[in-house]
Amino acid sequence: KINADRLWDSLMEMAKIGPGVAGGNNRQTLTDADGEGRALFRQWCEAAGCSVGVDTMGNMFAERPGEDPEALPVYVGSHLDTQPTGGKYDGVLGVLGGLELVRTLNDLGVKTKHPIVVTNWTNEEGTRFAPAMLASGVFAGVHTEDWAKDRVDHEGLRFGDELKRIGWEGDEPVGARKDKMRAMFELHIEQGPILEAEGKDIGVVTHGQGLSWTQVTITGKEAHTGSTPMPMRRNAGLGMARVLEAVDAIALSHAPNAVGAAGHIEVFPCSRNVIPGKAVFTVDFRHPELEVIEDMEQRLRFEGDRIAKEMGLEIDYEKVGGFDPVKFDETCVAAVRNAAERLGYSHRDIISGAGHDACWINQVAPTAMIMCPCVDGLSHNEAEDISKEWAAAGADVLLHAALEVAEI
Amino acid sequence: KINADRLWDSLMEMAKIGPGVAGGNNRQTLTDADGEGRALFRQWCEAAGCSVGVDTMGNMFAERPGEDPEALPVYVGSHLDTQPTGGKYDGVLGVLGGLELVRTLNDLGVKTKHPIVVTNWTNEEGTRFAPAMLASGVFAGVHTEDWAKDRVDHEGLRFGDELKRIGWEGDEPVGARKDKMRAMFELHIEQGPILEAEGKDIGVVTHGQGLSWTQVTITGKEAHTGSTPMPMRRNAGLGMARVLEAVDAIALSHAPNAVGAAGHIEVFPCSRNVIPGKAVFTVDFRHPELEVIEDMEQRLRFEGDRIAKEMGLEIDYEKVGGFDPVKFDETCVAAVRNAAERLGYSHRDIISGAGHDACWINQVAPTAMIMCPCVDGLSHNEAEDISKEWAAAGADVLLHAALEVAEI
Ligand SMILES: NC(=O)NCCC(=O)O
Ligand SMILES: NC(=O)NCCC(=O)O
Repeated sequence: KINADRLWDSLMEMAKIGPGVAGGNNRQTLTDADGEGRALFRQWCEAAGCSVGVDTMGNMFAERPGEDPEALPVYVGSHLDTQPTGGKYDGVLGVLGGLELVRTLNDLGVKTKHPIVVTNWTNEEGTRFAPAMLASGVFAGVHTEDWAKDRVDHEGLRFGDELKRIGWEGDEPVGARKDKMRAMFELHIEQGPILEAEGKDIGVVTHGQGLSWTQVTITGKEAHTGSTPMPMRRNAGLGMARVLEAVDAIALSHAPNAVGAAGHIEVFPCSRNVIPGKAVFTVDFRHPELEVIEDMEQRLRFEGDRIAKEMGLEIDYEKVGGFDPVKFDETCVAAVRNAAERLGYSHRDIISGAGHDACWINQVAPTAMIMCPCVDGLSHNEAEDISKEWAAAGADVLLHAALEVAEI
Repeated sequence: KINADRLWDSLMEMAKIGPGVAGGNNRQTLTDADGEGRALFRQWCEAAGCSVGVDTMGNMFAERPGEDPEALPVYVGSHLDTQPTGGKYDGVLGVLGGLELVRTLNDLGVKTKHPIVVTNWTNEEGTRFAPAMLASGVFAGVHTEDWAKDRVDHEGLRFGDELKRIGWEGDEPVGARKDKMRAMFELHIEQGPILEAEGKDIGVVTHGQGLSWTQVTITGKEAHTGSTPMPMRRNAGLGMARVLEAVDAIALSHAPNAVGAAGHIEVFPCSRNVIPGKAVFTVDFRHPELEVIEDMEQRLRFEGDRIAKEMGLEIDYEKVGGFDPVKFDETCVAAVRNAAERLGYSHRDIISGAGHDACWINQVAPTAMIMCPCVDGLSHNEAEDISKEWAAAGADVLLHAALEVAEI
């Protein structure tokens, strides 16, 4: 078993970097705080005897050597970046759980045939630079590196420039390792309510639901809120309100498994006495089946076109992110289930509601995920919470599942 | 008659300061550009023989002396600040029309018994610092100076600090002149479609409709857009969408004279994969009758409370601006109507759809307004447009109405 106190202390130590305003974290990708978090992680990894490589997308790989020089490494990890008002565990648990695994093997003097690599993937959250899971996507060959580096944040700053600025553009070609991976395991908090509600210690993640992000731009006409008669208005903000209502109805029409909402919403010029001339927002639809996601995307465009036409507005759609539903590797999934079973943890199979780096890595290597409960299913909120015991159980299963494929 | 070319040239010259992105202006109050515009205006006024006073709210008063040292001044003016994506004429025409009046009197060597004061009121637009017509409101005793100086912009900068920063905090006590005003006339573009549609040169403004700004804050719960089941969501953005729809319905229920919309809309944390935990937006309701405005305000709260309750959200309302419907001074209004008549301009009585500094000054001095048409009734848009002839007709009427009370 891993050392629960040490894991918890490391989580609390990392949470000091990029503190939020309400007890959580704001350690968004490629900010100075992200740079600090990376430096602390590297220092810990080196102290644990790992050599740390960094690729040209900033992905970090801390390797504990194996005994067989020919044997392919087993990867464990997740991400250290957070939402602007994020929790202390989303992503971080998977990275520091991987580090704790290495520290435990060191304590016990256990050698593995296959090397073990603890990984921190860059920009998993996708808040500052869409899409989410950007650097694991480039690693897996889903996006080109040039395209990824050209993504811009809200202020127009480029991913590539910001990566250089914080000093974490490495020299290892991104994806160079992708054909030399034995497996990858990602430990993550559930971010949903199922495990806690059912009192299970461990979620054995068999699938991930798919995601579609559509950025919608509605163009109306800026005009005076006081002196413009109602029939002459082309109010992009009101058009947006109607599309947001349609998004909710579309998701509910595929209840109980579909979800839909817009988290990113902006209107221009955002002046109290100017009828919005432009509204830009991103619709997030998810479902475990691709056909349903495609249906929701189509209906968004249909309803959006109808609303815009009725209101004399223009509407444009741009797909800014997404991935198809994922089926994780059966052997890796079995390794997770066996580990939970062996360790006596209660468990159930589960579908991930969120996207994870594991979803992309699954395309290039046998991959599976381990979930632990989180309080009230709450995540992407500074109040996100887990117990030390939940974290420890997840890391124990990570250790044993990884050992099964890393071979003692 | 005034010099139409000189007026137009001055309008074009002023429009070079704080250019917008689409042919209009971004010369928001208390920005560096506002400071530059003020400096140019002062220079022009001094060149026309006026002495320029500035009060502690930054209001500017350029005085052309009268012949009778006891006679109270006649004020003419408006504002030089603009919307973030504003036009070249909204406000500016009234200030530079006043300057042109002085220049014309100088050209003709006309002396008036009463001094004439050309005025630039600070922060009429209310975009950067709510409420609109802030400094004329302080001048008229509607707001206290301390309260006004504590207003903050989007970045938390204080009005008082920004006024100092741009160097336009004067030493004249604000409102010192308010009991010594013979009259005030404000020339302004209509910002609505009526005059152009009816082919009238001049709007004789008899009334101004009232305004109510209510800032609404809806609080839900930030949560993951992917892994949070639909029934568990408390989506402040969706709640806002429903309130925006209600705002539209409330205004339409008082058709054709009521208007309602929200121009200022923000959600937090504004991340694509976070269900909005908070939405803040400002509802703008207007109508010529106070009872209707009060009814709309009440129904906003009623509908907002209902929507919030149904959705498990919290909702708060703060009145951040407003004024009651205005009836302008009959003698001043008659002076405007007579001037238009005398000059042979077609005219009609009209109710102002927008708020103006004249609405507050009307509380402390006999006041009236003159309107000229604008293309398509469009304002608060960089494409705002008027013809040189329309501007000249407005300034002619301003000259003659002012002369009627300033006494040659
Ligand atoms: N795990 C997680 O929150 N990932 C962010 C990508 C997503 O929105 O699902
Ligand atoms: N004239 C004008 O646009 N004033 C701004 C205040 C308002 O919103 O009516």
